Amino acid sequence: MIDLVKNYAITTRRIKKSVIRELLKLTNKPGVISFAGGLPDPDAFPVEWIEEVTMKVIKENSKSSLQYGPTDGMPELKREIVKHSKKLGENIRDENVLVTTASQQGLELLGKVFIDPSDPVIVELPSYIGGLQVFGAYSAKMHGVPMDDNGIRTDLLEELIIKLKKDEERYKFLYLVPDFQNPSGVTLSQERRKKVLELSYKYDFLVVEDSPYKDVRFEGTPPATLQSMDGLKSVITLRTFSKIFVPGIRVGWVVANEDIISKMALAKQAMDLCTSSLCQLIAAKFCELGYLDKQIAFVSKRYKEKRDLMMSALEKYMPKVEGLRWTRPDGGLFLWLELPKNLSADELFPKAIEEKVAYVIGSAFHCDGSGANTMRLNFSFPTHEQIDEGIKRLGNLVKKQLVNQK
Amino acid sequence: MIDLVKNYAITTRRIKKSVIRELLKLTNKPGVISFAGGLPDPDAFPVEWIEEVTMKVIKENSKSSLQYGPTDGMPELKREIVKHSKKLGENIRDENVLVTTASQQGLELLGKVFIDPSDPVIVELPSYIGGLQVFGAYSAKMHGVPMDDNGIRTDLLEELIIKLKKDEERYKFLYLVPDFQNPSGVTLSQERRKKVLELSYKYDFLVVEDSPYKDVRFEGTPPATLQSMDGLKSVITLRTFSKIFVPGIRVGWVVANEDIISKMALAKQAMDLCTSSLCQLIAAKFCELGYLDKQIAFVSKRYKEKRDLMMSALEKYMPKVEGLRWTRPDGGLFLWLELPKNLSADELFPKAIEEKVAYVIGSAFHCDGSGANTMRLNFSFPTHEQIDEGIKRLGNLVKKQLVNQK
Repeated sequence: MIDLVKNYAITTRRIKKSVIRELLKLTNKPGVISFAGGLPDPDAFPVEWIEEVTMKVIKENSKSSLQYGPTDGMPELKREIVKHSKKLGENIRDENVLVTTASQQGLELLGKVFIDPSDPVIVELPSYIGGLQVFGAYSAKMHGVPMDDNGIRTDLLEELIIKLKKDEERYKFLYLVPDFQNPSGVTLSQERRKKVLELSYKYDFLVVEDSPYKDVRFEGTPPATLQSMDGLKSVITLRTFSKIFVPGIRVGWVVANEDIISKMALAKQAMDLCTSSLCQLIAAKFCELGYLDKQIAFVSKRYKEKRDLMMSALEKYMPKVEGLRWTRPDGGLFLWLELPKNLSADELFPKAIEEKVAYVIGSAFHCDGSGANTMRLNFSFPTHEQIDEGIKRLGNLVKKQLVNQK
Repeated sequence: MIDLVKNYAITTRRIKKSVIRELLKLTNKPGVISFAGGLPDPDAFPVEWIEEVTMKVIKENSKSSLQYGPTDGMPELKREIVKHSKKLGENIRDENVLVTTASQQGLELLGKVFIDPSDPVIVELPSYIGGLQVFGAYSAKMHGVPMDDNGIRTDLLEELIIKLKKDEERYKFLYLVPDFQNPSGVTLSQERRKKVLELSYKYDFLVVEDSPYKDVRFEGTPPATLQSMDGLKSVITLRTFSKIFVPGIRVGWVVANEDIISKMALAKQAMDLCTSSLCQLIAAKFCELGYLDKQIAFVSKRYKEKRDLMMSALEKYMPKVEGLRWTRPDGGLFLWLELPKNLSADELFPKAIEEKVAYVIGSAFHCDGSGANTMRLNFSFPTHEQIDEGIKRLGNLVKKQLVNQK
C-alpha cells in the first residue's frame, strides 16, 4: 500500500472529520423527527409535469440533450434564465449567465476564481454552511459580521472594512444570502441592500448574492434583488432550480458581468466540462411551458402552511422565558431559534437525539465559532404531524433543561 | 466597476486565452469537415431505450430520482458499477466507488485531493488535454515520458523516477490513459502494465488509470485492467458512461481504495454536493435492464466501421513518404498521425481550415510543447462521407505542402 499521507495535498491532509457530518448521521436514527436537513418536500415534486417535459425533450432534442453541451450552458436554458431575470428587473444578456451543476458549484467556482490562501472573505454571522466549507477549503480568512432582523448590520460591516483597510488587508468579496437566509430565515431589508451597494462602490469590493429561496415567498413585498439594483457592476448572483423545481437535476446558474462569467466558465471546463444537457433542457422546457411559475406558487403555499404550523407549535410548546425567541421567515425553508444565553444548543443536541428530535447546532453556521445558544430548524421536509410532534419534544426538552439549570 | 484584476486569484490572473480553444472555434466554420472534436456519434444514441428507462425511473423512483442524493453516489448505481467492475476482474465493494459528474470531475478531484503547487506529476507524451489542463491549473510540474506502439516507455519512466528521486523531488502520481489512448489511440501492452505496477510498488507512487474507452474495443484481446492487477493498492481508476452510453447525463465514477474515495467524496461535496440523482438512476436502470452491454456492442461495431473507413482513406489519399505514419487503434475514438519531421501540423492548421478540414494539433497534447509534426484525428463523430472527403482534403494538403517544402 502506497504512503498516502505523503501524497495527499496539504489541504487534504488538513481535513478532519466534520463534526456536523457526524451529528447529521445521528439524525437518521429510526424514530427521530429531524428538523436538521434542508431538503425540499418530495411530495411537492411536480412528477407528472416532469414526465411530460422529459419525454418532450428526449423526443424533440434527442441529439443535443444526450450529447456534450457548451461549458457555459445550453442556449435554450440561458434564454429562459434571461427571461426569469428580466422579471426580477435584471437587465442581463446570455453572456452574463453561466449554467452550473447547481449553486454549490457556483460557490466552488467563486473559491477557485477568487480566493488565494489567507485572502479575507466577509460573511454573515450566521452564514450558509456550504459557503463556509468552500471558502475554508480554499484557505480563506473569514470575517463575520453580525445580523439583526433586517439582515447584515451594515454599520458593523463598514467598521470591519475600515479596520481591514487599516491593517492593509485586501478582501475578496462579501458573501450574503439576502433572501430568507439559510440558516436564519432573515431577509435583508431594502434600505440595507442600498447601503451594502453604496459600501461596495465606496470601498471597491464585490458582493456575492446567493439566493436559492427568493421565489419561495409566503407574504409581503419582495425587496429588489441586489443584481437588479447594481446592474452587473459589483454583484455576482448565484441561483438554482433546486428549491423552485427539483434538486435531483443539479442545475443552477451564476449571473455576473461578462469578464467574471468567462473566467468562471474556464474554471468550470476543468471541473466537469458542462452540466448535464438533458437536465438543462428539462429545466428549460419546464420554464418554457409555464410550469415554473405554477410550481413556485404551489411550493410557496405548501411551505407557508408548514411554516405556520411550526410557528404555532413553537407558540404552544416552547416555555415563555426571557431570551428564548425565534424568527418568522416570510419565505424559504428555515427558521432560527435562540435559546436563553445560559443554554447551549450544542450540549442539548445528544439529549434531543435521545428524545428523538433533531436540529442543526447554530454554532456550525458561525465562522467564529459563536452562536452556541442557537439552532436551525427546517420546516419544508417534515410532515405536518412531524412538525407538531417534533416541536413538542423539543419544547419539553428545553423546559426540562431550564429546570435543571436552576 | 470593481477592479477585478485585484480580486482574482493568482491562478485566474495567470489564465490566458487557450490557443486550442481559439483553434477549435475555427473548426465550427461552415463547410469545415472536423476531425478535431471528441464527440460520440449522436446517431448511435440509444434514444428509445433511454425513453423507456427514464420513464421507468421517474415513475418508480419519483422521490429519490428528483431529490438530493448521497455525495458518494446512489446505491442503485454503485451496485451496477460494482457488477461491471467484477466483469473486468476487479474485486471491489461499494466503498471503493465514488460516482462523479463524469470523468472530468474525477480529474478535478485528483487535482484537488493530491496536488500542491509545484508537485511533480508524470504524464505520457502525448497525453489527454483535459488532464493536462487540470494538473496545470493546480500548478503541478509535469514530466512527460515518451510512448511507442506499446504505450508508455517503462524504461524511460524508471529513468525519470530515479532522476526525480536524486533531485529529492516528490512525485504525486503517474497519469495514464492505457486503453486506446486519447489522443494517440495506443493501448498499453500487458507486459508494460505489469512493469508499471512493479515500478509503482518499488518506488512508491500512485498510478491513475483514466479509461473512458476501454469497452469500445473493435478486435483483439483486452489486456487486464491496471485496477484488476493491482487490487486497490496503487491504482486510482477513472471511468465514465460518456462513451459507452451518452455524455449528456454527465455520470462517471472513480474506483480506488476506501481512504482515497472518502477524501475525494469530501472534496466533491464542496464541488456540487452530489451528481444528478435522475441521471444516476437512468444509468443504473440502463445497466440493470441489460442495455449497456448491447449498446457497447452496437457502438463498437459502428466505430470499427468508421475506423476502417478512415484507415482506407488514409491509405488512399496520403502520400507515401518517409516519416508519414498513423496509428491503427483497436478501439476508441481517435487515431494519431505523424507528419515527416520537417512538416509542422501547427503551421498546417490555418491552411487546413482554408481547405475546409480540421484536426487538433498534436503539440497541444504534449506537456513539454513537443510533437509539432503530429495531429489527432477523431473518427467517431464524422459521417462516412465526411471521413472520405475530409481525409482526401487533408491528403491533398499534405502533398501540396511536401512539394512546397522542396
